[in-house]
Amino acid sequence: MELIRRISRSSPAKIVLLVVDGLGGLPKPETGKTELETANTPNLDRLATESVCGLSEPIGPGITPGSTPAHLALFGYDPVRCNVGRGVLEAVGIDFDLQSKDVAARGNFCTVDQTGLITDRRAGRISTEKCAELCRLLDNPVIDDVKVIVQPVKEHRFIVVFRGDGLSPEVTDSDPQQLEVAPLDITALSPEAEKMARVVNQFVAQVKVILANHSPANMALLRGFSRQPSFPTMSEIYKLKPAAIASYPMYRGLASLIGMDVLEAGTSIEDEFKTLTQSYSDYDFFFVHVKGTDSAGEDGDFDRKVRVIEQVDNALSELLDLQFDVIVVTGDHSTPALLKGHSWHPVPVLLYSKWCRPDSINEFSESACILGGLGRLPATQIMPLAMANALKLTKFGA
Amino acid sequence: MELIRRISRSSPAKIVLLVVDGLGGLPKPETGKTELETANTPNLDRLATESVCGLSEPIGPGITPGSTPAHLALFGYDPVRCNVGRGVLEAVGIDFDLQSKDVAARGNFCTVDQTGLITDRRAGRISTEKCAELCRLLDNPVIDDVKVIVQPVKEHRFIVVFRGDGLSPEVTDSDPQQLEVAPLDITALSPEAEKMARVVNQFVAQVKVILANHSPANMALLRGFSRQPSFPTMSEIYKLKPAAIASYPMYRGLASLIGMDVLEAGTSIEDEFKTLTQSYSDYDFFFVHVKGTDSAGEDGDFDRKVRVIEQVDNALSELLDLQFDVIVVTGDHSTPALLKGHSWHPVPVLLYSKWCRPDSINEFSESACILGGLGRLPATQIMPLAMANALKLTKFGA
Repeated sequence: MELIRRISRSSPAKIVLLVVDGLGGLPKPETGKTELETANTPNLDRLATESVCGLSEPIGPGITPGSTPAHLALFGYDPVRCNVGRGVLEAVGIDFDLQSKDVAARGNFCTVDQTGLITDRRAGRISTEKCAELCRLLDNPVIDDVKVIVQPVKEHRFIVVFRGDGLSPEVTDSDPQQLEVAPLDITALSPEAEKMARVVNQFVAQVKVILANHSPANMALLRGFSRQPSFPTMSEIYKLKPAAIASYPMYRGLASLIGMDVLEAGTSIEDEFKTLTQSYSDYDFFFVHVKGTDSAGEDGDFDRKVRVIEQVDNALSELLDLQFDVIVVTGDHSTPALLKGHSWHPVPVLLYSKWCRPDSINEFSESACILGGLGRLPATQIMPLAMANALKLTKFGA
Repeated sequence: MELIRRISRSSPAKIVLLVVDGLGGLPKPETGKTELETANTPNLDRLATESVCGLSEPIGPGITPGSTPAHLALFGYDPVRCNVGRGVLEAVGIDFDLQSKDVAARGNFCTVDQTGLITDRRAGRISTEKCAELCRLLDNPVIDDVKVIVQPVKEHRFIVVFRGDGLSPEVTDSDPQQLEVAPLDITALSPEAEKMARVVNQFVAQVKVILANHSPANMALLRGFSRQPSFPTMSEIYKLKPAAIASYPMYRGLASLIGMDVLEAGTSIEDEFKTLTQSYSDYDFFFVHVKGTDSAGEDGDFDRKVRVIEQVDNALSELLDLQFDVIVVTGDHSTPALLKGHSWHPVPVLLYSKWCRPDSINEFSESACILGGLGRLPATQIMPLAMANALKLTKFGA
C-alpha cells in the first residue's frame, strides 16, 4: 500500500467498483450450477468477454470473512491489520458524528430473568420504534464528567458513545455472547482504561434500574468498545476522489471511515444506478454496493439470489452507458445459499478496461473464472490493478 | 497460523490427509506421461471429479524440499521458520524419550582408510543388527559430567544424545558429507557451546579408538546437533485430535513433535488403511503417509512408482467407505524417477468435501491439476482449506 501511495497519480480516468455482496456461491446438487451460473446474465457475460477475469480471495484460503474485513480488502487495505471496532462501525453506520476521542460501543437490548441471567440476547427483536423510545430513556447522563450518548440503530440494536477526557477503548465487553449467564462486569485491560471501566459499569447499573420494568427489554449488553481508527484515506493512498453508493448503513459507515463521500443511494439497485449516473461527473471512483445477493444467500434462498443477480445484470446496461475507463465487478466474499452464510470460497472478479489484456473467458461464473487471466488473487490486489488499468500508477523504479 | 488459531473450533467432522510421498513426477520421454499419469487410478480420478484440485508448492517455486520442511508445510507450519534438527528428528523417530535440555545428533557409521580419510560415508550399509552391536560398545560414557547415550536407528544410522548441564546445540558437524577427507573437528558456534564442542570431540576420540578394529564400520560421523523445538501443537492451532499413521520412523517422529498420536501402522499400505479403519472413531484428523512412491522415485524406478500409486488407488476404496467429511490427497513434494531424487515441481492435490465447490477436473494428474480450482497454492494453505471445508473455522471479523 505504501508503494501504491508513492506511485499513484491523479487523472481524469474514472473507475467503478461494483460489489455484489456475497456474490460467490456453491452449485445446487440438482443442476451442478451456482447461483451466478444459474442466473441469466447477458450483460455480465458480454463484459467478461472483454475483461480479464479471476477468483478473488478475500482474506486468505479457507478464511470466511465478515463484511468489514472483506470490504477493507477490496479497497486495498490489509484486512488483518486494519481493525475497525464494532462500536465505531455501528456509529458511523447511522451517520453519528463520532469525534476522535469518543469511545463507541455496540449495544443490544436483552431479556434477563429474575436472577439476572440472560434468556434472550435480542429481547425478542423489539421494534425499531420501541428501541428508539428506550434509548431516549437512557440517553444523555453525565457520569464522572463523561457525557454518555445513546442512539437507536435498528430493532434491538443501539450505540452508546462515551465523550470526555481520560477515556480508553481498552475494556472488556459486558456481552457474554451466550445465554443462561449474567451480563459481565466491564474490566480495564490497561491501567489507562480504569476510569473508562468505572464509568461504563456505573452506566450499566443505571440502565438496569431504568429498564427493570420494560421486559422483554429489561437489560442491555455492550460490546466492541472502540475508537475511530486512523487509516489513511483512499484519497491519500490513490489520489482519487471517491464516492460510495450503498443503501445499508454499515457499508456507508465503512466507506466514510476511509474518506469516501457517501451519496444518497435510495433503496433499490435501480436507485443506486440512478445516483451513479447523476453524480458521474463529480468523482473519479465509485464504490457501488448491492446487498440483496448476500441477504438471499444468508436466508438460504437460492432462487432469490439468482433473481437479484439478474436484476444487477439488467441494471448494468445503465452503468455500461457511462463509459467508465475501468469497471470491476466482484463480491466481497461468497454467501452460498446452500451454506446460509458467508463462506471462504473465492469470488469471481472481472476487470474491464481498454488496457486489460482480455483472457478467453466469455461467461461470468465461478467455474469459468478459474481459468481467467487474473488467476486466484488476493482481494487486496484488485485496487492496484484497477488503478493501473486507469493509467493512474506511474512506473516503479528507473 | 495465529489467525487460524484464533478462529478454529472443535467439531465432530473428520479430516484425512493422505500424503503419497514424492507423488509428483516428470513425464517419461517415450510416453509423455508422468508416473501418476501412467498409473491406472480409477478411484483417485473419481474422487478428483468430486473434488477441487490444484498444484501444491511445498516451500516456494524452484525450492526442492527435504521431507521435514515439506511435511511441516502440509501441516500448516511455516517450513522456513520452523526448523527441526536432524538429530532430534532421528531421535523422536525411534521413540527415544528426548528431554528438553538434551542435545541430539544423527550418527553414521563410516569407513576410513589408514590415513583417516573417509572412503565410505555409510560403512557399506552395515546391517541393523551390526549397528545395534556397535552402539552397545559406544553407549553410556560420562564425559565431563555429561551422559552420552548411543542408540541404533537402521543400517549405518544411529543417534547420540548428550544429557547434562551447560550444553548447547550450536556446534558444527563432524560429517563433511564428502569422501577423501577426514572427519571434521567439532567447533563451537557460540561461547555457550564451548563445553559442548569439548565433550563431543572427546566422545569422537573415544569412538575412533573403540571402532578401530571394526572395519568397515571403523569410524563415525555426527551431524545435525539439535534440541527439541517448541512448536505449537496441531491441537493448539486447530483444536483437532490428530493421529499419524506412518510406517517410517522419521514421519512418526515429526508427527509426534507436533502433538499427533502416533498409531501402530504395520509395514504395508493395506496395514495403514486397516489402522485407519480401526481408529476412525477415536480421532478427528488423520495423517496417513505412504512411503513407497518416494523410495521408487529415488531409485529411479519409474515402473515401481507407478505400481505403488496403483496400490494406493486400490486401497483407497477402504478409505472412501469411511465417509470422511474432508479428504485431501497430495504429496509432500515431487520425486520424479527421471531425477532420482526430490524435486521442486509442484504436487497434485485434491480436496474433497460436501462444500468444496468442485472444478472441471476429472483426472488426478499433474497436467489436469494445472486447471484446478485451487490453482497453484502454497502447501501451507492446505490445512486452512481442509479446516474450512470441515466447517471448523469461524468467521473472521464483523
